[in-house]
Amino acid sequence: MLTNVEIAEDGRTVELSWSGGKRGRFHAIWLRDNALDDKTRSPGNGQRLITILDIPAETWIDQATIEHGELRLRFLPEGKDVTFPSAWLSANSYDRQAPDTAGWTGETIRRWTKATMQDTLPLAGYAAAARHPAVLAGWLAAVRSYGFAVMDGLPTESGALCKVVDLFGYIRETNYGRWFEVRAEVNPSNLAYTNLGLQAHTDNPYRDPVPTLQVLACIENTVEGGESSVVDGFAVAAALQAENPEGFRLLSSCPARFEYAGSSGVRLQSKRPMIELGPDGELIAIRFNNRSLAATTDVPFADMEAYYAAYRRFAELIEDPAFEVTFKLEPGQAFIVDNTRVMHARKAFSGTGRRWLQGCYADKDGLLSTLAAIEHGFREAAE
Amino acid sequence: MLTNVEIAEDGRTVELSWSGGKRGRFHAIWLRDNALDDKTRSPGNGQRLITILDIPAETWIDQATIEHGELRLRFLPEGKDVTFPSAWLSANSYDRQAPDTAGWTGETIRRWTKATMQDTLPLAGYAAAARHPAVLAGWLAAVRSYGFAVMDGLPTESGALCKVVDLFGYIRETNYGRWFEVRAEVNPSNLAYTNLGLQAHTDNPYRDPVPTLQVLACIENTVEGGESSVVDGFAVAAALQAENPEGFRLLSSCPARFEYAGSSGVRLQSKRPMIELGPDGELIAIRFNNRSLAATTDVPFADMEAYYAAYRRFAELIEDPAFEVTFKLEPGQAFIVDNTRVMHARKAFSGTGRRWLQGCYADKDGLLSTLAAIEHGFREAAE
Repeated sequence: MLTNVEIAEDGRTVELSWSGGKRGRFHAIWLRDNALDDKTRSPGNGQRLITILDIPAETWIDQATIEHGELRLRFLPEGKDVTFPSAWLSANSYDRQAPDTAGWTGETIRRWTKATMQDTLPLAGYAAAARHPAVLAGWLAAVRSYGFAVMDGLPTESGALCKVVDLFGYIRETNYGRWFEVRAEVNPSNLAYTNLGLQAHTDNPYRDPVPTLQVLACIENTVEGGESSVVDGFAVAAALQAENPEGFRLLSSCPARFEYAGSSGVRLQSKRPMIELGPDGELIAIRFNNRSLAATTDVPFADMEAYYAAYRRFAELIEDPAFEVTFKLEPGQAFIVDNTRVMHARKAFSGTGRRWLQGCYADKDGLLSTLAAIEHGFREAAE
Repeated sequence: MLTNVEIAEDGRTVELSWSGGKRGRFHAIWLRDNALDDKTRSPGNGQRLITILDIPAETWIDQATIEHGELRLRFLPEGKDVTFPSAWLSANSYDRQAPDTAGWTGETIRRWTKATMQDTLPLAGYAAAARHPAVLAGWLAAVRSYGFAVMDGLPTESGALCKVVDLFGYIRETNYGRWFEVRAEVNPSNLAYTNLGLQAHTDNPYRDPVPTLQVLACIENTVEGGESSVVDGFAVAAALQAENPEGFRLLSSCPARFEYAGSSGVRLQSKRPMIELGPDGELIAIRFNNRSLAATTDVPFADMEAYYAAYRRFAELIEDPAFEVTFKLEPGQAFIVDNTRVMHARKAFSGTGRRWLQGCYADKDGLLSTLAAIEHGFREAAE
């Protein structure tokens, strides 16, 4: 709860205090731009109705009081009165120390290794997830936290994997179709369609924007081998950074290039780093795929050997069994990965028996939106 | 054509010379990883068959010769012989000075203003683009260069805009559907569905990944007003950088936040900068939308006033008529924008008459792939 407000810097800022000792300063221009009144924000859809150019460049706070726990401000020269809830201000406070080390992640992200994940795979049944928002929210929250979850109880029929995406969002159609077959072919257009083992990788790094989610579902699996495994790229990146900060810096500050031209009419190319950081140093994406990595031409000559050493070490860590969680998909099971974070791999398999998987892509915006909406509904119901 | 090769640094690098005076150094590990032979790359689909861990960490070049204009190398300890075409090495040379100023763009990008664009809008007819790859390639190349193009001759019927996307790629379905109606509504879930003017903006910055292309097609337009306009965000960003480098730095180094929760079951949020740079300083995306900009909480307190001043100046430049290209969509016309670069706006319109547009999203990966495949086909046919 707000306990005190002081106008400072001739009304260009205010200093707030909350019970419990929290303090925070806010700027007049920021408060005016983020006003919550119905002339500034549409009551119906929440969108801002004004532009920054509708606000005087010289805006200051003339009066500031706390009334019923809310902050009440008068802005000049507009002569506009606005109130802000205490909790809203606390949640949006920006008067804090910025993270000073690159590679950090937000509080919803939990990194994992084999030791912490192998025996506790996040799992939901399809029927329960489709019926119960709480089950669905738990499963989606696992994807948000771990970048990975398993679903079982799907029909063992072609296209059933789309039902998984229908639970939270929309399929990202690509040149591979709305979904694609993953089974051994003669003259494959992609090495995924062989019985070779595949090194842990993210899919389609040659695409920009990259598909941010992938679902792989099993319809039949009677081969020897062919297990699936997943590796937390954020955990591996942290391990690389801990032992080789300069290598981490090179992989995150130099773009890699990826390409795919395996089928007619398709020539996909991208230029993005293997380890992507936001401008504030937040770790936001991993791209790793030996099959589609193109010639690296954006690393300074003097750094290329160190870059390759870092890439090699990153690959070694990715192959380290301590990071690898392994399982064999059974018919009716699927798994989803955050394709900007969690790598997946396949063990080689024998020619006897059949292994028939299907894959599709989707995007995180829909998943996180659906999760946030369910969580919001639960909070409103609780209040 | 290659004219000379010298082994240097005990075989860890080679120095190449081409006729015409070009020179470039390459590392042994880079050359080995990028070998083009059929044990390293699949002859069928071009994918790399080996991982970096299949190559000895200590790899060096024992013999280097030029034969028939190709570079022939022997790698030790593998004892592996590989040849590289002269032109491939020249195209992938990385021994060069890196750009030292942020905000640069690649050679395919042409920035534009009203003066250079208003009278020469890139335009193709739908029937010709569908029939003639050269016409389609010209239109797609305009999108690549300018982030914007017009198409006419579409059927004036609902859903016709999907035909535009079918020419090059795939629709990105979202919570707004595969496509959506843009016409004035009572109780709109989005301000786009009113007759208000809309400040120039990119769409859906609250989505991550953002839709990288948008198509808006006109079925009916008999209102007064309601003109469309487009603004090259890359040109505006360059103008901002020229007059206020520190403002450009703040908008590109501090994430903004965007959100949309205008309809039930949807709570979209993102955290990305208004001006996005790649790790090598390349200007790669603009996000600008007053309606969905959320509270900015990732700017250091001490920089917030300067950040807001830069945001205001960016908005002023975006509204500067010198950057704005205006046209009125007629029935059967559509335009496409690179939604990571070109902002679009709408003038307010009267209540008399009807304005019925439809919009949809798609992605640049498919567009650029289709363009590259056509261009590749033309080059092969010419050889």
